[in-house]
Amino acid sequence: MRIALAQINTVVGDVDANLAAIRESIRRARLESASLVAFPELTLTGYPLLDLVHHQPLLERQRAALDELARASDDLSVVVGFVDFDPDRVGSNGRPIVYNAAAVLRHGSILGVHHKVLLPEYDVFFEQRYFSRGRQGLVVDLDGLRVGVQVCEDLWDLHYETKVTLDQARAGARLIINLSASPFNLGKGQSRRQLIQRHVRQAGCPLLFVNQVGGEDGYEGELVFDGDSLAYDRAGSLVGRGKLFEEDLVLVDLDEEGHGAVVSDREFDEDLEALGALVLGVREYARRTGFRKALVGLSGGVDSALVAVVAARALGAENVLGVSMPSRYSSDHSREDARELARNLGLEFRTIPIEKVHQAYLETLADSFEGTKPDVTEENLQARARGAILMALSNKTGALLLSTGNKTEVALGYCTLYGDMNGGLMVIADVSKPRVYAICRHINREAGREVIPRRTILKPPSAELKEDQVDPFDYDVVGPLTDLLVEQELTVEQCVARGYPRELAERLLRMIRVSEYKRRQAAPGIRITKRAFGVGRRHPIA
Amino acid sequence: MRIALAQINTVVGDVDANLAAIRESIRRARLESASLVAFPELTLTGYPLLDLVHHQPLLERQRAALDELARASDDLSVVVGFVDFDPDRVGSNGRPIVYNAAAVLRHGSILGVHHKVLLPEYDVFFEQRYFSRGRQGLVVDLDGLRVGVQVCEDLWDLHYETKVTLDQARAGARLIINLSASPFNLGKGQSRRQLIQRHVRQAGCPLLFVNQVGGEDGYEGELVFDGDSLAYDRAGSLVGRGKLFEEDLVLVDLDEEGHGAVVSDREFDEDLEALGALVLGVREYARRTGFRKALVGLSGGVDSALVAVVAARALGAENVLGVSMPSRYSSDHSREDARELARNLGLEFRTIPIEKVHQAYLETLADSFEGTKPDVTEENLQARARGAILMALSNKTGALLLSTGNKTEVALGYCTLYGDMNGGLMVIADVSKPRVYAICRHINREAGREVIPRRTILKPPSAELKEDQVDPFDYDVVGPLTDLLVEQELTVEQCVARGYPRELAERLLRMIRVSEYKRRQAAPGIRITKRAFGVGRRHPIA
Repeated sequence: MRIALAQINTVVGDVDANLAAIRESIRRARLESASLVAFPELTLTGYPLLDLVHHQPLLERQRAALDELARASDDLSVVVGFVDFDPDRVGSNGRPIVYNAAAVLRHGSILGVHHKVLLPEYDVFFEQRYFSRGRQGLVVDLDGLRVGVQVCEDLWDLHYETKVTLDQARAGARLIINLSASPFNLGKGQSRRQLIQRHVRQAGCPLLFVNQVGGEDGYEGELVFDGDSLAYDRAGSLVGRGKLFEEDLVLVDLDEEGHGAVVSDREFDEDLEALGALVLGVREYARRTGFRKALVGLSGGVDSALVAVVAARALGAENVLGVSMPSRYSSDHSREDARELARNLGLEFRTIPIEKVHQAYLETLADSFEGTKPDVTEENLQARARGAILMALSNKTGALLLSTGNKTEVALGYCTLYGDMNGGLMVIADVSKPRVYAICRHINREAGREVIPRRTILKPPSAELKEDQVDPFDYDVVGPLTDLLVEQELTVEQCVARGYPRELAERLLRMIRVSEYKRRQAAPGIRITKRAFGVGRRHPIA
Repeated sequence: MRIALAQINTVVGDVDANLAAIRESIRRARLESASLVAFPELTLTGYPLLDLVHHQPLLERQRAALDELARASDDLSVVVGFVDFDPDRVGSNGRPIVYNAAAVLRHGSILGVHHKVLLPEYDVFFEQRYFSRGRQGLVVDLDGLRVGVQVCEDLWDLHYETKVTLDQARAGARLIINLSASPFNLGKGQSRRQLIQRHVRQAGCPLLFVNQVGGEDGYEGELVFDGDSLAYDRAGSLVGRGKLFEEDLVLVDLDEEGHGAVVSDREFDEDLEALGALVLGVREYARRTGFRKALVGLSGGVDSALVAVVAARALGAENVLGVSMPSRYSSDHSREDARELARNLGLEFRTIPIEKVHQAYLETLADSFEGTKPDVTEENLQARARGAILMALSNKTGALLLSTGNKTEVALGYCTLYGDMNGGLMVIADVSKPRVYAICRHINREAGREVIPRRTILKPPSAELKEDQVDPFDYDVVGPLTDLLVEQELTVEQCVARGYPRELAERLLRMIRVSEYKRRQAAPGIRITKRAFGVGRRHPIA
């Protein structure tokens, strides 16, 4: 039999758009003589729905859409995600009961409905908050072939008592299809492959994993869905694979025994994957919020250079404006490097000196500052003048302001709230400084030329907010140590055991804690690691 | 028997401070000859813990503190909240299993442990995310009296199948004690009373509710805990009551039949309660974050006037700086009203005109703005100049900047991100414009004089960002309608059915939706209604 995995980009809340995309995939699957087509999790509503799950008109509209699809179905089986609900029963949250569900449509009717059994309530997931739990995995009979249908977390059963896949195999399933909205993070591709292979060994039948692609608002940050759908046959061999970060219709041919023709797997390169995720994240955020143009302040440093490259790839260089805003402390090379980057990328470029505004602030505040020494206040004023100028350009031109702080800076609070943190999206807020350098080098290597000026990569990082300032960190040490403290939540003791100086670990932990208030007011960032700020991480401000 | 309800202000994460407060209450309860003293939910760790619940050293420290309390216990029974954990078992979130627990300590040991059965996962609560569920309510025997111990939500059982209170009564409980961290919202006092009275009728025994007091970081906003502990005897009469918004040790005397002497209930006044909650919220936020001084931009309007009054009450007038920042568009009365308010309250007051900075921005951006018409950009620049000046004063003096947007403005996006939204805490972000006026009038009435200048209350609201500007809303209509759309989540149809014009309802709903991105970057607000922005409300940006 031939199965089509429709790796589509659904849109949260837009049932009509999702229905149209589903119909198009059904049409193509039929042309390809598939006998079954499967879609990602919550296909009709998009994922994650957040509080929209309580929006009754949306629930009714998508339920009607499901019925339309069912009525139009024939001997091509369609497995599609939707929200099942019971308006007459109320859950413990006082809201009508809803299920994260999947339906099997065939010959004009709904052949079976699966309610997601395992509901993740950790990290970026809030499903116990929104959904009621299903009792067991669905197994349906399709022309004598028993097919198990499950949704996303049903597969990730390590810490759950219920084992959906194994139960389905025991109930006679000879093929299992998993509808997913599995967000990207570095290393996720490998863990999915290991997980599926383990299940295939245990269940003794093929397992097909169809994943959503695109970017969605994860409430506390931007989630990227990477596609990368996977089909493993009964022997545990990869027999189908969806594109990374792109829509795809994956065709999988399985014989009666559940075996297929082996396909080669992709290569795993973290810098390439991170860059792809950032580009998709920016493109999707802009699409959803209706921006066609973007705006980046270019300092001549690596962070803004990387954001500019990402923006140009996501929206087209012709839709990106780079702005250099030199101050009395800016070096010549900063201005030149910013200009050269813009030229290399083909961006529109503008220079707007901040001296006049900076001076006006100092004069306006002279009385208030009398008798005090210059401190971080004066530095912040420059960052805030730049932030206001960028926002004025954004307001005037309708371009999305992208902010440029990296994960290490944002972790340590080495950034100015209402200044360089301004913007609708913090593009690299989940990319640590050493990885910023690695991705920049990757970009130049891949291009075979200096897209990002060599000097930008080689010079010591500086905020240039006072004379002869350079960043007070050795990022080669501080970057990884900060990652250990944030991503892996190591204690100071554990960092010391790994060879880091205790004093440094304590200092960084203190900096991470006292800057929580800044992150609370930060724009959403694009998540590329297991533990991004905002997304799934909830630490008190005090 | 005499029971003491120790309505204390616990501190999240500070086990030593909480232990000291518990010991002090035990000492006082002993002096009062109480035979039992009960504390609020999660007494030893504070509530809510958020991700600190995963912090192993904290868990171990509070477990050791529980043992210390148990060893020191004698014939005064102590009922105290803590986090119980099982390091050898892992939950479905991949973390060690933890319980939101209460222990009964007596005669040197732990007599019994209750694991919270009903775990709220809605609104401001995320307990299924963090805790495992207990199986049933604890009932312990204290000198022949069977006492049921439960935690907070165990009482709010309407939508749960398990009925903890009734089960405890059936298991023979003749007294039930509920340890709570029940956050304040308007109307909560009445609902708690109705709920407890219903349970007393059904269970046929006295029910004592001891609540935390103070303010805590609810991750998406500032939660206020109002105290207002309650004791109802077997007849359903109020026989003990804790102070509102203050620490208290409530003594309750019950005879062998479970009857006590009736006490009078408090009055319910929403304006008074709202004001009290705001004052406590500011005081607690400042205490936790280490600020002793605050800073408010005074426009001469009601919003900043109310915030200034709240700040003066929370921190002392001598610790509050009011700043007037007139522009070319400011009216004389705005400057005068700001100055008069500061004088009435006894605030330090400063005037810092923004003209020079405003002009510098316009000149700096003249090239970029050439050929465009003045629009919201120029208005935002003024708000951002003010925001940067206030942040400079905050940076320089170490004073906490309080922002002044009300709930109606914040809902409709009638506020400037990185401008008047700047600040560590949005004091009145959950107070709709009509309620701002009501509280201001309440303040003057209560004081018997014009604390807030009469003209501030009577003049038409204006942002004064261009010539002859007044706010484009009739707040008497728009305020309540916005509340219906946000707090009660009514659809446009439902608003029309209540007599509001369809066009207006649609326009406001659109404004609410498109300004979601601003609220996502807003400072935390103090929650006073059932549905504040941020707190428990999760709508997508797009």
